[in-house]
Amino acid sequence: MIAAAGRVGGLTSADLNFPEHLAGENVDAISRALSDHGLALNGLAMRFAMPEFANGAFTNPDAAIRREAIDLTRRGLDILAEMGGSLMTLWMGQDGFDYAFQADYGVLWDRTVSALVEVADHNPDTNVAVEYKPNEPRAFALMPDVATTLLGLCEADRPNLGITLDFAHSLYADEMPAHAACLVARHSRLLGVHLNDGYGKRDDGLMAGVVHPIQTVELFVVLAGIGYDGVIYFDTFPDHSGLDPVEECRTNLANTERLRMLAARLSDHVELRKAIARQDAATSQRIVARALFGAG
Amino acid sequence: MIAAAGRVGGLTSADLNFPEHLAGENVDAISRALSDHGLALNGLAMRFAMPEFANGAFTNPDAAIRREAIDLTRRGLDILAEMGGSLMTLWMGQDGFDYAFQADYGVLWDRTVSALVEVADHNPDTNVAVEYKPNEPRAFALMPDVATTLLGLCEADRPNLGITLDFAHSLYADEMPAHAACLVARHSRLLGVHLNDGYGKRDDGLMAGVVHPIQTVELFVVLAGIGYDGVIYFDTFPDHSGLDPVEECRTNLANTERLRMLAARLSDHVELRKAIARQDAATSQRIVARALFGAG
Amino acid sequence: MIAAAGRVGGLTSADLNFPEHLAGENVDAISRALSDHGLALNGLAMRFAMPEFANGAFTNPDAAIRREAIDLTRRGLDILAEMGGSLMTLWMGQDGFDYAFQADYGVLWDRTVSALVEVADHNPDTNVAVEYKPNEPRAFALMPDVATTLLGLCEADRPNLGITLDFAHSLYADEMPAHAACLVARHSRLLGVHLNDGYGKRDDGLMAGVVHPIQTVELFVVLAGIGYDGVIYFDTFPDHSGLDPVEECRTNLANTERLRMLAARLSDHVELRKAIARQDAATSQRIVARALFGAG
Amino acid sequence: MIAAAGRVGGLTSADLNFPEHLAGENVDAISRALSDHGLALNGLAMRFAMPEFANGAFTNPDAAIRREAIDLTRRGLDILAEMGGSLMTLWMGQDGFDYAFQADYGVLWDRTVSALVEVADHNPDTNVAVEYKPNEPRAFALMPDVATTLLGLCEADRPNLGITLDFAHSLYADEMPAHAACLVARHSRLLGVHLNDGYGKRDDGLMAGVVHPIQTVELFVVLAGIGYDGVIYFDTFPDHSGLDPVEECRTNLANTERLRMLAARLSDHVELRKAIARQDAATSQRIVARALFGAG
Repeated sequence: MIAAAGRVGGLTSADLNFPEHLAGENVDAISRALSDHGLALNGLAMRFAMPEFANGAFTNPDAAIRREAIDLTRRGLDILAEMGGSLMTLWMGQDGFDYAFQADYGVLWDRTVSALVEVADHNPDTNVAVEYKPNEPRAFALMPDVATTLLGLCEADRPNLGITLDFAHSLYADEMPAHAACLVARHSRLLGVHLNDGYGKRDDGLMAGVVHPIQTVELFVVLAGIGYDGVIYFDTFPDHSGLDPVEECRTNLANTERLRMLAARLSDHVELRKAIARQDAATSQRIVARALFGAG
Repeated sequence: MIAAAGRVGGLTSADLNFPEHLAGENVDAISRALSDHGLALNGLAMRFAMPEFANGAFTNPDAAIRREAIDLTRRGLDILAEMGGSLMTLWMGQDGFDYAFQADYGVLWDRTVSALVEVADHNPDTNVAVEYKPNEPRAFALMPDVATTLLGLCEADRPNLGITLDFAHSLYADEMPAHAACLVARHSRLLGVHLNDGYGKRDDGLMAGVVHPIQTVELFVVLAGIGYDGVIYFDTFPDHSGLDPVEECRTNLANTERLRMLAARLSDHVELRKAIARQDAATSQRIVARALFGAG
Repeated sequence: MIAAAGRVGGLTSADLNFPEHLAGENVDAISRALSDHGLALNGLAMRFAMPEFANGAFTNPDAAIRREAIDLTRRGLDILAEMGGSLMTLWMGQDGFDYAFQADYGVLWDRTVSALVEVADHNPDTNVAVEYKPNEPRAFALMPDVATTLLGLCEADRPNLGITLDFAHSLYADEMPAHAACLVARHSRLLGVHLNDGYGKRDDGLMAGVVHPIQTVELFVVLAGIGYDGVIYFDTFPDHSGLDPVEECRTNLANTERLRMLAARLSDHVELRKAIARQDAATSQRIVARALFGAG
Repeated sequence: MIAAAGRVGGLTSADLNFPEHLAGENVDAISRALSDHGLALNGLAMRFAMPEFANGAFTNPDAAIRREAIDLTRRGLDILAEMGGSLMTLWMGQDGFDYAFQADYGVLWDRTVSALVEVADHNPDTNVAVEYKPNEPRAFALMPDVATTLLGLCEADRPNLGITLDFAHSLYADEMPAHAACLVARHSRLLGVHLNDGYGKRDDGLMAGVVHPIQTVELFVVLAGIGYDGVIYFDTFPDHSGLDPVEECRTNLANTERLRMLAARLSDHVELRKAIARQDAATSQRIVARALFGAG
């Protein structure tokens, strides 16, 4: 997989899943493979395996499994530091519920906040980002959207905690991604951006810009405005369409570079700023459509 | 309103709602106003007023109200013919249900089919288009999506019946609009297209191309392919955003003309056709993104 | 309307919309009508009329309109105090956006927070509740869900601010209502509950308990747990189904009383508590189904 | 798994997935295991394995893979006949698309219809049911909802073709399941029912009756009305919640038996029939709530 990522051309960094991508592997060998293919390690992403964590990782009813989830994350943080990476991404997909009368919501919340505190305190030099997602595998995730996650982070109150915004997750959380990024910057820190696209109903994992190019450009404008200088990670699922992953990634790159350039042009567009100040969408949409696809 | 439509510049036709736009008005005066402002009458759209038709028009439990709904539509057809228009659009928004155990579904269906037959037979020279929409005001419309409407039209089996496709309705019916248009062409006739945009969750009524430009271009490619030569009607809601309706309409026109031109370019793109034949989205999305916004 | 509410039998309180229900009316006459029909005034609900506030009330781009929205709310608070009510409900439905590049999200947020502060400070003895709703009329409300609203209230930081939870709004914000109530109790105060039901896709406004009876019972269990002693308000739309509003209200009352009684029985159910502590839904659902409809 | 199903108590039939559950197995041994545990074989369900069929089974761009999908289904039909089963369920989950400009919709449709014809003709004595589902793994399934599937079956026009209705799929296709069953009975044949529940946003696979008990009861009333005498299959996902599958299945059974009994009581309820004829939900909901949970 690392070799394939290197073959794309244009990729500069990679994320690895822990423990699955590093199980039984020599960490040095992986680090070498990354640098051999011109890739830096951006960070690790925790994956809590089924069936052990089916009924929750940080929120599991069994104290021993909760402890194992936290300790596994701490081991991940140690390996991340050893490999020179600086970002741990937590997608707590099993921490949630499926039924009314399945769980005590306050208990789930307390366990999540205290686990985040413990994980953040394990290595204050490493950033820990929560990647929210509305559902799947659970019908309801405990951290389903930007604002709920910000409430949780606000309680945890650690400077190395923040948020990873996944574009398709944000869409199906009924958010406008640029607005979500603003809320993150206001109440916490934006530590990661997963780019992709979708139809706002589930985690489609489509290539960037193929459904919501204008909303993607707006996100880039906001990212520049809040000074986001982290990695843009493509979280797409070429296998769902039987696509060649290298070609799919090249389309992701081509689209993203173009939309980012268009965002740079619009960032200091005086008439656009004035229209936005008036909340005059008739004008702003005409300016944006002209910039993007030459309309009008 | 007619004068405002004339002021936009570029509009060629108008639809009127019946009976609201024609109540107590001199039909000749309206016709004259249209031609004075350079507009042709495309057609009429039935509006079944509340509270009389709250519990259904064609499906109302009261036979007298059902009769009134059909007769009102027949009067509309007469006025439409008198004004020289050729398309009656039926949005049967109150024909549906809100609760389990509220209605006998088979009865609602029978009443709808027989009303469509009677309305179609009233004037075989006039086209009658059903405009489907998932919900609102009813929680469930009886004709919520393209395929259900086609099943109903198939039973009614009249040559002057067909479908009006509203882009935002199609999106929130979980359809890809171009695919919906293909299904219509295969099983019935596409009689009208309402252009707008939205986020796929409700009838947003946004300006065309502002959320789904690529899906809009695909629809235009399919419209050309099936030989649709009817009117493109802007069904947008400037008042929801407090926008100036004339300026909003101009943005609609500018976007639509541009996206239609891009569709014409893509219609005979050999590499795109090949990629589609292979269902190779990595390639097709790159071609489309290059054509639309110069990517890659 | 007050007389009709009195005819239902079992209703104890009423809310009025301001200014529409009180425009040009003698406040004393309304107060007398309420008491004549055995109803106490629970509170007022602000309605910012169209088209003046189409592009926002507290977030309008025009400073004069923002000022008018705040001053109108303050007048509402004065009348509320004069009438002896204690709860002002704010549904800021026009404060939002429809398009990417329509508004500066940070500016909308700042304006909302400062308006909430000013309104709360106008009369510290009156509670002011924000009623969140995902969308409509705007495609995106600025206060769409419980957590975003809590973030805003946290910034406003006034003791008389809180939240009104509308069951159908919560469902279509992808929330489990009982969980939303817990979050409110944890981070702010629950000041009002609007009961109704729906299918989780829009603001259906159906009678209570007709779609989600189990989730409604769970909400009642949580309301008891957090000590909510406010009014249960039926926010349903009998007119959408052409229903008789008095009969519809009686069904609301009958369902609600029964579900509340079942909730009381389940509140101290030892086996249920144990199953919830284990997050064992196979057991908890059997207990709940037995209590509700005699299963197994 | 067969032994576990037998342990539940109350299950009478089982479905097996083909080829996964029968790969390399002795068909006789499986048949014996079923009868040893008191289970009849209801039918087989086709599973088209990834990655071979990632880009479609019946609609794959590669003719050889399409042929393999059809031939695999024919082998499944032969084994089904050999095992004495009478129902083949087709869930064509990979037959769909993810992107605009990914596929020629008419071509996908033609391939699906002709594959259904060939499969149906392979053994006219065996019923073949299409189980529709809105999406997953594809963003758009070609057979996403009841009406589209009926259109396809109408074209295929074979007497042994029909539909399997999955309750959770129907909910997230924005259907009322009882209405969907009526449409199937009107235009084709209902060959299977998968019971479960969900929140109408994705394929939650929850235990029956835990979210939509009233809509489940309505479905049972309709099933009796249309004379459905097939199997009720529990298509739920205990592993998503880490539940014990035997206990989960017992709750499914207990809920289903109770709701079915309540449906039988309501089927010949004269006042309920009258209320439904009037589309008077205020009355019908009170009758249903009284029957289900003793309200009012």
